[in-house]
Amino acid sequence: MSETARVEVIAIADLPEIRPGDDLPGLIADALAGQPELLPLRPDDVLVVTQKIVSKAEGAIVDLTGVEPRPEAIAFAERWDRDPRQVEVVLRQARRVVRMERGVLITETTHGFVCANGGVDASNVGPASGQVVTLLPRDPDASAAAIRRRVRERTGVDIPVIVSDSFGRPWRWGIVDVAIGVSGLAPLEDLRGQADADGRIMRSTIRAVADEIASAAELALGKTARRPVALVRGAHPVRGEGSIRELLIPPEHDLFP
Amino acid sequence: MSETARVEVIAIADLPEIRPGDDLPGLIADALAGQPELLPLRPDDVLVVTQKIVSKAEGAIVDLTGVEPRPEAIAFAERWDRDPRQVEVVLRQARRVVRMERGVLITETTHGFVCANGGVDASNVGPASGQVVTLLPRDPDASAAAIRRRVRERTGVDIPVIVSDSFGRPWRWGIVDVAIGVSGLAPLEDLRGQADADGRIMRSTIRAVADEIASAAELALGKTARRPVALVRGAHPVRGEGSIRELLIPPEHDLFP
Repeated sequence: MSETARVEVIAIADLPEIRPGDDLPGLIADALAGQPELLPLRPDDVLVVTQKIVSKAEGAIVDLTGVEPRPEAIAFAERWDRDPRQVEVVLRQARRVVRMERGVLITETTHGFVCANGGVDASNVGPASGQVVTLLPRDPDASAAAIRRRVRERTGVDIPVIVSDSFGRPWRWGIVDVAIGVSGLAPLEDLRGQADADGRIMRSTIRAVADEIASAAELALGKTARRPVALVRGAHPVRGEGSIRELLIPPEHDLFP
Repeated sequence: MSETARVEVIAIADLPEIRPGDDLPGLIADALAGQPELLPLRPDDVLVVTQKIVSKAEGAIVDLTGVEPRPEAIAFAERWDRDPRQVEVVLRQARRVVRMERGVLITETTHGFVCANGGVDASNVGPASGQVVTLLPRDPDASAAAIRRRVRERTGVDIPVIVSDSFGRPWRWGIVDVAIGVSGLAPLEDLRGQADADGRIMRSTIRAVADEIASAAELALGKTARRPVALVRGAHPVRGEGSIRELLIPPEHDLFP
């Protein structure tokens, strides 16, 4: 239950520039251990790690120089002033194209995420050459689990980990951070059957707590600062192994294919 | 800029049960003034007020007893085990029906919000009689502005106010709190043209900060506790008069009609 009265979001001290092959779980565990004011970690802490550094450390990066765009990518890119090679990379990562119109490319990724450009992203990936893009991590739950394990080994406390990314939404401008991988918590909190403050049984309240925690973390991280990790203290999510797949609506329930 | 390193979310001490005609702005200002540990308020504070108490205070409530459902509402309700009178109320609040299938009713409200059941809600509205539902506030920006004004008069500090509600999202299970009304902040933070941590100019980063603040607030409020107001401290949103309309995608840009 979220019976909490106070939640804190604390950006973790700057990490070094992350490069492919870096031991990100170890670097994060070191960074946490290096902030004694945060220790000991608490069982109600959640660590939020933004996707970009996970992808970089795992080498989920594509150099656009060698990418040959298909004709569809070239046509779309020319019409809408985009890089055809990046469009090509998005299409390669896609299980299906949800929308490809008016310069917007929304795909369902191999993980099942529906998002703009399939999570392929050119910003914040090293020197501003425009030649390199990050992909989403291959298995973001596993990325979260690896970080969780190393933090536990290093600090002695098992705290949940969320890997987050910035997604747009239909009908509302702007992006918000959401969870794309979890370990150690249930991404959804099912309040159905519980009584609300008036004693009424709630029929349909399932809260996407992992997404709310990811959004809260972003408020402390900012977008232009090099702060890719935050600790969220006091949100009291429901513990469990957890998988982001629990949060994804399967195709047979999708009202917006 | 969100150059912040720490954000706090603090639930405001319990308010009395809110009833139609109550002076909610005054009650909230009193509650804030009654928590000296929060004072003085800071210019980087944001007050988040959940929709339900706003609707109750403003009398945005419908007693279902006198509602005559149209045949379409009766048919949908019978097929999907819902209250036909509530379906009728949703349809009356709708500018258009976005989806009405598989028991799910998604409408665009007169405000322009696309959400399940048009924001009409049966939970937490007084005794568990099942006879009364809340509507969304008629003008949530104005609701936020009225609260902002009274808090400023009472505390001497002008802090932004967000009215929040819980919305579902396509493709992801679960609800998250988002902003439905704002006063005193820009709901979107436009980072386009700024350099990111690598010196790269960001092309398309517009953050829905008001929605992230609303989600963060929910983590401290919980759903079953009677805590409808939270202070979010340290998020440093961009100040301005603001309107939630800035955040809504107009029909001509809607890819998911």
